[in-house]
Amino acid sequence: MDKNLLHGMIREFLREDVGRGDLTSESIFSELDHGSARLVARNSFVVAGAATVAAEVFKVQNPSILTVDAAADGTRSRPMMELLTVSGPVIDLLKAERVALNLLQRLSGIATLTARFVDKVKGTSVRITDTRKTTPGLRVLEKYAVRAGGGANHRFNLADGVLIKDNHIAACGSIREAVDRVRGKIPHTIRVEVETDSLDQVEECLTCGVDIIMLDNMSPDMMTRAVKMINGRALVEASGNVNLETVEAIAGTGVDIISIGALTHSAPACDIGMDWSF
Amino acid sequence: MDKNLLHGMIREFLREDVGRGDLTSESIFSELDHGSARLVARNSFVVAGAATVAAEVFKVQNPSILTVDAAADGTRSRPMMELLTVSGPVIDLLKAERVALNLLQRLSGIATLTARFVDKVKGTSVRITDTRKTTPGLRVLEKYAVRAGGGANHRFNLADGVLIKDNHIAACGSIREAVDRVRGKIPHTIRVEVETDSLDQVEECLTCGVDIIMLDNMSPDMMTRAVKMINGRALVEASGNVNLETVEAIAGTGVDIISIGALTHSAPACDIGMDWSF
Amino acid sequence: MDKNLLHGMIREFLREDVGRGDLTSESIFSELDHGSARLVARNSFVVAGAATVAAEVFKVQNPSILTVDAAADGTRSRPMMELLTVSGPVIDLLKAERVALNLLQRLSGIATLTARFVDKVKGTSVRITDTRKTTPGLRVLEKYAVRAGGGANHRFNLADGVLIKDNHIAACGSIREAVDRVRGKIPHTIRVEVETDSLDQVEECLTCGVDIIMLDNMSPDMMTRAVKMINGRALVEASGNVNLETVEAIAGTGVDIISIGALTHSAPACDIGMDWSF
Amino acid sequence: MDKNLLHGMIREFLREDVGRGDLTSESIFSELDHGSARLVARNSFVVAGAATVAAEVFKVQNPSILTVDAAADGTRSRPMMELLTVSGPVIDLLKAERVALNLLQRLSGIATLTARFVDKVKGTSVRITDTRKTTPGLRVLEKYAVRAGGGANHRFNLADGVLIKDNHIAACGSIREAVDRVRGKIPHTIRVEVETDSLDQVEECLTCGVDIIMLDNMSPDMMTRAVKMINGRALVEASGNVNLETVEAIAGTGVDIISIGALTHSAPACDIGMDWSF
Amino acid sequence: MDKNLLHGMIREFLREDVGRGDLTSESIFSELDHGSARLVARNSFVVAGAATVAAEVFKVQNPSILTVDAAADGTRSRPMMELLTVSGPVIDLLKAERVALNLLQRLSGIATLTARFVDKVKGTSVRITDTRKTTPGLRVLEKYAVRAGGGANHRFNLADGVLIKDNHIAACGSIREAVDRVRGKIPHTIRVEVETDSLDQVEECLTCGVDIIMLDNMSPDMMTRAVKMINGRALVEASGNVNLETVEAIAGTGVDIISIGALTHSAPACDIGMDWSF
Amino acid sequence: MDKNLLHGMIREFLREDVGRGDLTSESIFSELDHGSARLVARNSFVVAGAATVAAEVFKVQNPSILTVDAAADGTRSRPMMELLTVSGPVIDLLKAERVALNLLQRLSGIATLTARFVDKVKGTSVRITDTRKTTPGLRVLEKYAVRAGGGANHRFNLADGVLIKDNHIAACGSIREAVDRVRGKIPHTIRVEVETDSLDQVEECLTCGVDIIMLDNMSPDMMTRAVKMINGRALVEASGNVNLETVEAIAGTGVDIISIGALTHSAPACDIGMDWSF
Repeated sequence: MDKNLLHGMIREFLREDVGRGDLTSESIFSELDHGSARLVARNSFVVAGAATVAAEVFKVQNPSILTVDAAADGTRSRPMMELLTVSGPVIDLLKAERVALNLLQRLSGIATLTARFVDKVKGTSVRITDTRKTTPGLRVLEKYAVRAGGGANHRFNLADGVLIKDNHIAACGSIREAVDRVRGKIPHTIRVEVETDSLDQVEECLTCGVDIIMLDNMSPDMMTRAVKMINGRALVEASGNVNLETVEAIAGTGVDIISIGALTHSAPACDIGMDWSF
Repeated sequence: MDKNLLHGMIREFLREDVGRGDLTSESIFSELDHGSARLVARNSFVVAGAATVAAEVFKVQNPSILTVDAAADGTRSRPMMELLTVSGPVIDLLKAERVALNLLQRLSGIATLTARFVDKVKGTSVRITDTRKTTPGLRVLEKYAVRAGGGANHRFNLADGVLIKDNHIAACGSIREAVDRVRGKIPHTIRVEVETDSLDQVEECLTCGVDIIMLDNMSPDMMTRAVKMINGRALVEASGNVNLETVEAIAGTGVDIISIGALTHSAPACDIGMDWSF
Repeated sequence: MDKNLLHGMIREFLREDVGRGDLTSESIFSELDHGSARLVARNSFVVAGAATVAAEVFKVQNPSILTVDAAADGTRSRPMMELLTVSGPVIDLLKAERVALNLLQRLSGIATLTARFVDKVKGTSVRITDTRKTTPGLRVLEKYAVRAGGGANHRFNLADGVLIKDNHIAACGSIREAVDRVRGKIPHTIRVEVETDSLDQVEECLTCGVDIIMLDNMSPDMMTRAVKMINGRALVEASGNVNLETVEAIAGTGVDIISIGALTHSAPACDIGMDWSF
Repeated sequence: MDKNLLHGMIREFLREDVGRGDLTSESIFSELDHGSARLVARNSFVVAGAATVAAEVFKVQNPSILTVDAAADGTRSRPMMELLTVSGPVIDLLKAERVALNLLQRLSGIATLTARFVDKVKGTSVRITDTRKTTPGLRVLEKYAVRAGGGANHRFNLADGVLIKDNHIAACGSIREAVDRVRGKIPHTIRVEVETDSLDQVEECLTCGVDIIMLDNMSPDMMTRAVKMINGRALVEASGNVNLETVEAIAGTGVDIISIGALTHSAPACDIGMDWSF
Repeated sequence: MDKNLLHGMIREFLREDVGRGDLTSESIFSELDHGSARLVARNSFVVAGAATVAAEVFKVQNPSILTVDAAADGTRSRPMMELLTVSGPVIDLLKAERVALNLLQRLSGIATLTARFVDKVKGTSVRITDTRKTTPGLRVLEKYAVRAGGGANHRFNLADGVLIKDNHIAACGSIREAVDRVRGKIPHTIRVEVETDSLDQVEECLTCGVDIIMLDNMSPDMMTRAVKMINGRALVEASGNVNLETVEAIAGTGVDIISIGALTHSAPACDIGMDWSF
Repeated sequence: MDKNLLHGMIREFLREDVGRGDLTSESIFSELDHGSARLVARNSFVVAGAATVAAEVFKVQNPSILTVDAAADGTRSRPMMELLTVSGPVIDLLKAERVALNLLQRLSGIATLTARFVDKVKGTSVRITDTRKTTPGLRVLEKYAVRAGGGANHRFNLADGVLIKDNHIAACGSIREAVDRVRGKIPHTIRVEVETDSLDQVEECLTCGVDIIMLDNMSPDMMTRAVKMINGRALVEASGNVNLETVEAIAGTGVDIISIGALTHSAPACDIGMDWSF
């Protein structure tokens, strides 16, 4: 993750939570009071963002804060495991605490859910990917957490990937026409993906050299047939109705990629506390 | 919610999702193509932000987009219920779609979870409130959703409320000293709240005129005793270990407020789609 | 004051005064020329912002500038007293000079005027507070200067305090209705204040548990009667027509708080110079 | 004043005063409640910024607010004179009220003080100008107010004018050397001004073709002699120790320009209220 | 081009050129003075950005300005041909004039140079593309101009495309290792491109399924051999030493794409004037 | 150049080119990989911005990057001459590379073209200046490059200089009226310039004390006559149709200043590479 970008985001988050100052702590502590604290896992999960995000929150609040012993991304935590130790001026530790925890809990939550899906398809070559169903303002971080959990990223936004959907096709009259219009205008560095909901559409994709064929809301059976039809001539992405119960069967159909909105829109936060040792 | 503030946020969210343009749609549609679509509930939940947030996303993307038939905040949706109808230039509808849905799904998710807690304590005068455990960057919106779900808000940030915690007390030597230091420096418009974890601390709070006493992670029994001791001399807030199973018992202890981090950090997104009618 | 917030403001102020560079100094000095200078009081006043604001202006312009011997907030200056010594690259000292002086003169002016009011009510427990009549863009700094002068702050903005005024009451039909509507929607951490201009209104406030009663533009006599009526059941704030001649009499009525717009909107700047020693 | 620039500033000012919303008004009024109000002078002063600034504050808060009957800049107000009438959604009128008043009171204060100086030198061709001693963040507006009061502006910032001061001269060894270094590097569109404190320095300025000679802190006698020496070969600016008692005598010395820091750093705010008529 | 993005950029450009106002025009014209003017080609070129950029500059400066008769992108201009007519408040037309012209001249310059390259390879299926050698801050606009001139875009930035260069390969020890590391981490929507400078490297690319092979600074002969080797198994991009003299020969080698830095870094501005008709 | 201003610009430029990260380099290198590289001239030109701009780009990307051996502004490069050596984390060197090169190539291009014009008028006292025909967003940098090439700057923007053009004159009825209106409103620190296209207009300028007379698109003969008429009573600026063929003749007419739009709008980029030594 680019630090310049990250620091800009953190600055906004701190502004939101700290406002013009911490009424309580600035009334009680002096700028000279120092302390240290540990961010500690309260349950078991996959860590994302301890070293790379939470530590940076403290650094942005006050560059003199020391951050050590950060758990690496992807670490499987046990209850009471230490994820990060911070020390420095108490006022700044307190100002950064909530933003650091909120981010670490959310990102670890996403990594944990991703890892559960990834574990389900272990042994296959299927890629678990995210979607654009991320929290507005946090996409860079949430997609980072998906990678920390062993998943991969789909396109970042509307400008760096192509996904031709039903209304695009409808407007063009055919998949071929839609693909042609798009190919003529986009950089050659980007693959063309088309969303399909029938085998006829899959067939049409193949005739016009689509790079990635998305099978949208198809049954495993239908997916198996589609994969056979495609036979390596395009990457195959499964999408829709994917959950921890269905993902294994979907992976069994031979698709290359399974994209899952829930990774980012419905992962519960992990439980992490900050324990002080004055 | 202040519209100037909201529009600034939406602009950032659109920049994140749209980037420098929608490669696919701009290749296929012309600026003259118009269409309309409906945001539709796929399951049952409590609506938050259809008229006030999702509609504004479309308006910010292009002020000429018409938004009608928005479901009011607090509406209980049924599957297939329409939440908002939008019409205007197709390219702009497509650019705004994902941000509008991501926000509406998340805010409705928070309202829905809030409403479940509120329903559990119906018949009591207890207030269900949020905490500072919100998604960084979205606090204004998420606290809005809590209100839409029938809950109330706790302080917005470190600058507009006071919460004296264990490390503040430890640094001062006593609750009285901590309260005095804070009272001397904060606006008289703000109440002083102290976090306690024992009845002794509750007692100490009462002797120094604390406005709000937070009972942190206490058992229902202990809370009941604390409420009796306090006897109306301060507002009483329960915090910690609150979930849908425990909330009723906690409300039964006579506390005034129950604050719940899960409202904002772990509410799953609602399922909402955008159906097109070209 | 939060340094991250402060630095952002200073950066804007420097941009305003320096523009794209100092035509004169950049033509004459090289980046290697170093010097030092002292900010010196030309008359007697109460210092605010020497260490906390003026020194930071130089630091933001160039972190390598050394700032020493800063006068503490609240110090009573005598003519020729040194308030801050700075040393570093001459070009940067000259670029920061005017912004540092403009801020220090203004903030010390506010602290000085505040202290004059505070001195007038010495021996009472009355709090002198500011209002929202601050210079747009400088509220954080001006409210800081009020505290440096021995005063206290009223609410920071419309979002972190409640003040029910005549038009709110008129719209609701009664104070009770207004208070009820507000109480139902605001965080429990915030007190409810109502502006009154008659004893009947004061009475009505008491019946509905208002936390703070503002006596607006009342005569000292009327205030005395109001304070008696209230009898400790609410905080009492006097507002309107407060000046150095009237403040003592107002304090004598027994009110708890006297809020004064002039503290921030009409304090003349103090006279401070920057003396160079190349 | 450039409206794009102004609107950006107003947006920041509103964000400061409104924060994330008006707790009181948003609890009491609905978005459909409309009202109107008049900004009214409470005493006599010179108006600055009613039409050009205060009205724009309301427009930025909500473009649907109507603003009529604005007093022109330079108008001499009488008590009870109306300066602006606004009508629209009550919530937005209340949100914009304080920022509009704070600005109008301050700008009119500056215009009023400027006009008092200008009146003192009526009948001469002397120009009364401001300095860089403005409130950080408000320079554009405050310099505008000086013009509204009949004054003129000095350079806007360090980048669009040249003023060679004592430390510049000291670093160069002579005025000539300083002037030469500067002339060689600045645009030909900008005049070179030198600060002098002796007649010898004035003489030196004349020998090297300085465009503007500032007489700094000189007595009226000395100024008279300087003006004679200069004899039209350069513009002459008086600076230092200028107040309402001394300005006439200074104007009598024959200088072209009198620059006065007090215009912007010490003008008391005018008294202006907002009267509602629901 | 996304209008929200574009308007933000234009606002910055106007701030740069207008500063706090147009000293000359605001002194001479009133806000009521209206006029109209035509942007007119002074020589022959390919138009880019008349309707889409220059017209928007005027609209951003003042939404009430009318813009009509804009020449479409790609139009071949003749001397005296009108490119855009604008009418509205004179002050705003003058404030927007230079930014509109500077952009239109530069973008048309890029489109014109692009079209010259495109014309040279007419009859082939070769794509002429840009590079990242754009003017900092103008990439969106300059890449738009390349498309207006008949060219295509390469990746937009380091985050939305992959180009494995010599130092990446060196760090990995082999192309295969570099490709593997990249493939494992990037979205499946993005093609992998590798820069090669020998046929051995081309060969190595083919064995590991590289999507795009860049032939860097190769002679036409060598390119021809490379194209034969590749034989459709990857897209082939020629890069380096491409100019109007060499481009035809390069196209003749059978490459798919020719990328040319000069399109954006060295296109001279077109000559366009603004003729007034008061 | 002011570093605070410069760093803000560089941050935006990096954001444009790097986006949310370097997909390729971040996949291949670790944060611990270090390297060094040299920016090297590929042909002969006048250097601008190696130490002052390009080195700062690397510093902004990562303050730990070392930058040494920067070529001074105005240095005449030979092929293979080193302009800057940088060393530090490879990922950050790669992220900063393109922005640094794009800026250095463009600024050196402008300095080089400027120097060619300056060389042509060597031996005269004529000043070669730029215009407002700069690249939007880069004016500070491009005007800096003009100075590095031996030229001088014209006004920076519409707010810090006055240029009365034909439409201003037309609106006023006469040059005198236009000059009077402007003089009355602008700071006394700014000279008044008038654009003329006939000797009659030149004459009129002289009668009203214009400071700078621009001769617009006049023949050398006519300029010679104008210069004689003016005879030192105003600065004389030649503008229009200036190129490397005509500039000498124009200088021979005796004008003081020759302003040339091509310096900034049509200078081709210099060829500079970055050679790595891992």
